[in-house]
Amino acid sequence: MDLKSWGEFGLIEHIQAGIQVPEGITGIGDDCAIIPQQTGRETLVSTDMLVEGSHFLMDHITPYQLGWKSAAVNISDLAAMGGRCVGSFLSFALPKGLQQAWIEDFFRGYKELSALYDCPLLGGDTTTSPDRLCINVTVLGEMPSGTSVKRNGAKVGDWICVTGPLGDSAAGLQHILQQKPLDEAGQWLVDRHYLPRPRIREGMALAAAGVHAMMDISDGIGSDLRHILKASGVGAEVDLRSIPVSEVMQKKCADFGWDPLELALSGGEDYELLFTLSPEQAEQLTVPHHRIGRIVAGNALTWVGGAKDYVGFRHF
Amino acid sequence: MDLKSWGEFGLIEHIQAGIQVPEGITGIGDDCAIIPQQTGRETLVSTDMLVEGSHFLMDHITPYQLGWKSAAVNISDLAAMGGRCVGSFLSFALPKGLQQAWIEDFFRGYKELSALYDCPLLGGDTTTSPDRLCINVTVLGEMPSGTSVKRNGAKVGDWICVTGPLGDSAAGLQHILQQKPLDEAGQWLVDRHYLPRPRIREGMALAAAGVHAMMDISDGIGSDLRHILKASGVGAEVDLRSIPVSEVMQKKCADFGWDPLELALSGGEDYELLFTLSPEQAEQLTVPHHRIGRIVAGNALTWVGGAKDYVGFRHF
Repeated sequence: MDLKSWGEFGLIEHIQAGIQVPEGITGIGDDCAIIPQQTGRETLVSTDMLVEGSHFLMDHITPYQLGWKSAAVNISDLAAMGGRCVGSFLSFALPKGLQQAWIEDFFRGYKELSALYDCPLLGGDTTTSPDRLCINVTVLGEMPSGTSVKRNGAKVGDWICVTGPLGDSAAGLQHILQQKPLDEAGQWLVDRHYLPRPRIREGMALAAAGVHAMMDISDGIGSDLRHILKASGVGAEVDLRSIPVSEVMQKKCADFGWDPLELALSGGEDYELLFTLSPEQAEQLTVPHHRIGRIVAGNALTWVGGAKDYVGFRHF
Repeated sequence: MDLKSWGEFGLIEHIQAGIQVPEGITGIGDDCAIIPQQTGRETLVSTDMLVEGSHFLMDHITPYQLGWKSAAVNISDLAAMGGRCVGSFLSFALPKGLQQAWIEDFFRGYKELSALYDCPLLGGDTTTSPDRLCINVTVLGEMPSGTSVKRNGAKVGDWICVTGPLGDSAAGLQHILQQKPLDEAGQWLVDRHYLPRPRIREGMALAAAGVHAMMDISDGIGSDLRHILKASGVGAEVDLRSIPVSEVMQKKCADFGWDPLELALSGGEDYELLFTLSPEQAEQLTVPHHRIGRIVAGNALTWVGGAKDYVGFRHF
């Protein structure tokens, strides 16, 4: 059924349905959402835009996946500071002719991911686009004052660690782009690409452990680690032999002739956390992690055990 | 010069230049912005998306005007609750081939408006679009807990008031669309359309005065007032003879055969505040205002002194 039969208010009613808003918070329905403050806490805010044709193709991603991923990539930015979710704000410009069923599936994905992370949709904007779908999500999070983990705290001598295997998402994307047959392993990789799980719990534990610098891996550590190095005024040595990759991904690389390190370091969209901490802190750490290198003096990023450079995803 | 020569980081450096971020707030540069909280205050959040071809045409609006207006229409949502600004978050998807000079002018407008309202840009997302420019702004505001003015508080017997003349913005838009010669009066109306001034100071004073219901006039009161009526479960009588209109706008209507009431009630984008309060409150009120009607029992909106209905702008 065409969107027109719903109208703006039918659409908003559909969006509101089933959202659990915590007591004290005013969500959808007025000029602004209203969220109480509390001394000793700080608010985190992040925002991301996704445009059809630049960030996704309608015939490659299901509306359910797109809804899930739109919320997930933003929540991942909260994880990268060590925060917990407060709520999200979704703007979208709908092209004419988009069907109600499409919107329903989109919100099923968006709301399922949001419910998993206690991140209720608190407001937004619904409007029209001449052709391409455009989505913007803003998330609010919060945490104890002064405990958020920025990019600028890495110290010489720190270990560099990640919370999980890298490159699954990039392998999933290659699977789709190269139209490889979707066996179980392939589907698992594709899910890693389209249905990422932001590391909120891990991020909170890492912030509580006092790690020195942290970010989420969205562009590949070939790009992301350089942000930490630049902000902290340090260099790094990364041991290519210690980059964690999944068995599934390795097997697919062997089958299709893909380079696992290229996918792991330049592919991005893993949404694992990349962080640095002292060796003493690492000994105490209860969060599962993989050590991939160490912070050194200078400003260079050196790949140990290989001759190639890995640059990560370039937006422009 | 083409945007490519800047690169993503040159662009972000340009965006950051000259922004005054209050002490204690961390703005652009990490995964999230960080804003301290304070017991006894509440956070306000609103978001709006503007898509080229749906909301603006590149050859009708200058980049300076678009930058100004993008920030202004969101800040107006804070005014509508009675809040003050904390900061804004700007996402934009830039079409290929957009020139640096365009971006510079856009940010000149965005930053000038933001500086006027102490609303620093604290974060965002810069990305690319295959063709159309897409902009999303999220604003954060704050105010004493429990004092924000919602849409649902209008009471039978209340006066309905507005903070200023209506229809100037719609007349400015007609001026542009009908390509009327731009004399001084025409330019003044066009500025009212493209360079609106959100009523933050008035909104704060109205919230402090305890007005019952409030919103900003974005779609025309033919549409906006109905939101207050629906949320509050009341009806209204609006006296068409008391709708405030500027002399400039009236004169243009006479010259070009436009209907001033149609522009004032259905045109929208005035960004004046629409509010209801008791007659006793109105007597004490120091904020300049115009009484246009009263809240009555029932759920109907009745126009007194005319035979026509005014519906406001329809988004879908």
